[in-house]
Amino acid sequence: MNHGSSSERIAAALRDDIRALPSGSALPATRALTLRFGAGPVTVQQAVRTLVREGLVETRPGAGTFVRRPMASPPADYTWQTAALGPLRAEGAFVGSTMQTPPVEVIGLHSGYPADELLPARAVQTALARAARSRSALDRPPASGLPELRAWFADELAHSGTQRAAAEQSTGGAVLTVAAPSAGDVTIMPGGQSALSSVFRALGRPGDAIIMESPGYWGAIAAARQAGLVIVPVPRDGAAVDPVVLAEAFERSRARLFYAMPHFANPTGGSWSPGEADRILAVVRENGAFLIEDDWAHDFALDLPVRPLAARDAGGHVVYVRSLTKSVSPAVRIAAVVARGPARSRIQTDRVVDGLYVSGVLQTAALEVVGAPSWPGHLRRMREQLRLRRDSLVALIDELLPAGTLTAVPQGGLNLWLRLPAGVEAPEFVARAAEAGVLVSPGDEWFPAEPTGGFVRLNYSGPDPSRFGEGVRILAATLDRLVR
Amino acid sequence: MNHGSSSERIAAALRDDIRALPSGSALPATRALTLRFGAGPVTVQQAVRTLVREGLVETRPGAGTFVRRPMASPPADYTWQTAALGPLRAEGAFVGSTMQTPPVEVIGLHSGYPADELLPARAVQTALARAARSRSALDRPPASGLPELRAWFADELAHSGTQRAAAEQSTGGAVLTVAAPSAGDVTIMPGGQSALSSVFRALGRPGDAIIMESPGYWGAIAAARQAGLVIVPVPRDGAAVDPVVLAEAFERSRARLFYAMPHFANPTGGSWSPGEADRILAVVRENGAFLIEDDWAHDFALDLPVRPLAARDAGGHVVYVRSLTKSVSPAVRIAAVVARGPARSRIQTDRVVDGLYVSGVLQTAALEVVGAPSWPGHLRRMREQLRLRRDSLVALIDELLPAGTLTAVPQGGLNLWLRLPAGVEAPEFVARAAEAGVLVSPGDEWFPAEPTGGFVRLNYSGPDPSRFGEGVRILAATLDRLVR
Repeated sequence: MNHGSSSERIAAALRDDIRALPSGSALPATRALTLRFGAGPVTVQQAVRTLVREGLVETRPGAGTFVRRPMASPPADYTWQTAALGPLRAEGAFVGSTMQTPPVEVIGLHSGYPADELLPARAVQTALARAARSRSALDRPPASGLPELRAWFADELAHSGTQRAAAEQSTGGAVLTVAAPSAGDVTIMPGGQSALSSVFRALGRPGDAIIMESPGYWGAIAAARQAGLVIVPVPRDGAAVDPVVLAEAFERSRARLFYAMPHFANPTGGSWSPGEADRILAVVRENGAFLIEDDWAHDFALDLPVRPLAARDAGGHVVYVRSLTKSVSPAVRIAAVVARGPARSRIQTDRVVDGLYVSGVLQTAALEVVGAPSWPGHLRRMREQLRLRRDSLVALIDELLPAGTLTAVPQGGLNLWLRLPAGVEAPEFVARAAEAGVLVSPGDEWFPAEPTGGFVRLNYSGPDPSRFGEGVRILAATLDRLVR
Repeated sequence: MNHGSSSERIAAALRDDIRALPSGSALPATRALTLRFGAGPVTVQQAVRTLVREGLVETRPGAGTFVRRPMASPPADYTWQTAALGPLRAEGAFVGSTMQTPPVEVIGLHSGYPADELLPARAVQTALARAARSRSALDRPPASGLPELRAWFADELAHSGTQRAAAEQSTGGAVLTVAAPSAGDVTIMPGGQSALSSVFRALGRPGDAIIMESPGYWGAIAAARQAGLVIVPVPRDGAAVDPVVLAEAFERSRARLFYAMPHFANPTGGSWSPGEADRILAVVRENGAFLIEDDWAHDFALDLPVRPLAARDAGGHVVYVRSLTKSVSPAVRIAAVVARGPARSRIQTDRVVDGLYVSGVLQTAALEVVGAPSWPGHLRRMREQLRLRRDSLVALIDELLPAGTLTAVPQGGLNLWLRLPAGVEAPEFVARAAEAGVLVSPGDEWFPAEPTGGFVRLNYSGPDPSRFGEGVRILAATLDRLVR
């Protein structure tokens, strides 16, 4: 046995010892090891140096040799990614506060999703279970969606509001009936957010301008930024965007896209009148542009029905987005985009590339829920509940908060838009209210540029409306402390 | 009654007539109308002019007045969209032929999806039905996915292949165990295609280069183009990309992204050996780049297990994509991306902006299927069936097609990659074979640039393997006619 292998033998024995010792334990001194292994101090020290090189022990001068903490999980170093990834694209917060799931004891007026009791829960569960046992659990549906579901969306759009009247345009005396949207114009999407992302990517190129209402939906702002679009805000203080201001924005930005929520806008709740809609649509046509109409609250029309602009669009200028997620179930992520001409084909291409197709189980279940004879009755009852909730929250705000706080009483949708007194900033108010047990959404999230004042959004579709009074009292007290 | 209202009265009566007449019918002559309405010819002619203005009738000089074809659906003019939309982004076909659903009588060797009998159909239907009756039918899951499902994917990755051995790297003598991937590193996606699209968008900026194997997956090619990335192809003729060629591609293109299928690549079927994987990973690290590892065929490992490179990645260089769609069900569109460091956070941001979250019903059902004690047994039986199918198709090709047609016998996956004799072009061969009743995929779809020869892909997981012999005989006869 030569010197080297003797050192190796000692190292091997010590490795066994080390495995059994907690980190930080002292190894026996060199003298003790020479006795134990019957080897000289040089050989022993050579064995220890081997263990040091292997990272198993460390020598502290004057103190001895100690078992090292195992290097099993060194802190990973991902700093190289900073160079590989380059600059961030979307500034600011990307996930709205509406996506939070709060602890149960707080009063949640922040959510974007209606509470269970407003959903057709049994119909959804039955429809999903039936779909699960059908071929749709095993089949791959067509990329653009199930034909029957596409037909349902087309039919809904064709018959929305006072369809025939709205669908006819008098053009210089000739009766020009707009061709009703057909199933072929519909692309099924896995939810409204996906629909917006696809439409923005398909119709815009990075660097292109897109006109948006301000304030407007945070998810659309995030999707437009992610698509590399430059957001050109136009103010929407009252009911609708001013057509003159819109025309100027088109001229200045050379935008070809205008994203808007004509009915029950999120967050302000405002709606365009038919006359305003006509004037705005005329500006869009004159500018050879698309109006991306987000009809998010179609099912939440409380005081007046929705007449989508897409139903009276003759030239393919309106790209229409409607989702069932909020009115059917958060688990049934189904939406539709209605578009005509080359725009439709670009959107369908993006959909395929982004996700090939939408689960047939979800499409089948969605169709069963909205196609059932019970659906109109459910919608009627849900709207009645939402009306009661809205009116209750409006009355409490009128009673308990300073005059002028409520900007308007919306005729549909799920939200109230509150203006805070001058000098009160939304983020601070929201933080203080949360500490006191009430969650609301800071208005800042809905502005594509700087907010024009302190605003908060209150959603009246969350759980437990019996606590609205308590909630508004807490908001009033919070405001009181901030303005004092 | 004045003159004007008399003309109006005549026009109203004629409108009723016109409604009942087929288009092209002649109106009575002016003289007949003067008699019928007891009015002068000027009044009658004024009524007719009103109808002309309204587009209801047209006057053909010397012939009379005729009912017009209704203008209800004029051919819509969408030409303005051409200017608004600008140039197309993704060239060529965007939907692979693998997405076709053929008539039942043809022999389908083109599909990308395993036939029903290879799927855990009953387990899927039971799991979906159970999920339908649970809270997951009504709840909104966290944006990054259900914690239990994320943990399952992380655990699968940590224990893939001969996990511990693969997870340890000897670094200069110190034992450096790679930290196992954790649930927090996992983002749930609505299918593998969505995962690729999100990763490309999140990690690349429009104009950035991405290195891809050629031939490679058509869906990845389409997703990269849609994200605005420039594809830099590196050849993958044999088992793996040549590390020297890869290093040159990195240097030339300054790419930070390399997309690859290390195991059972689609379409070639080749796999990287552990040694090749080490050398390729070293090149990726040296270039401060990401390897996007598409482990699409993890569940279709036939002769050797998959050891994902992500399982031994210490520095966050490997972004790992795995989907359950092909092995669980086309309706259960669930995939996962495993990434670490800032890359993970960018991918999660893209996911939220692209679609907020993935349906909880699908996540719950997927977890129940793959987490069940019966899953390993199902995988074993499915692999046995796939092995028989592959061996049968390989034997038939060896027997009936010219020597050298089969490029390799893959050790996993679902496909065979065939080289056509010199002078035979894939599109023509595919078209002739389809006419003769056999669908195969033209190889051209898998090349990010020009194809380097005539190739076709045959998938052995489609319906009815008993017709493989008939299918290959038809392919042989088709080839015979083309080379003669």
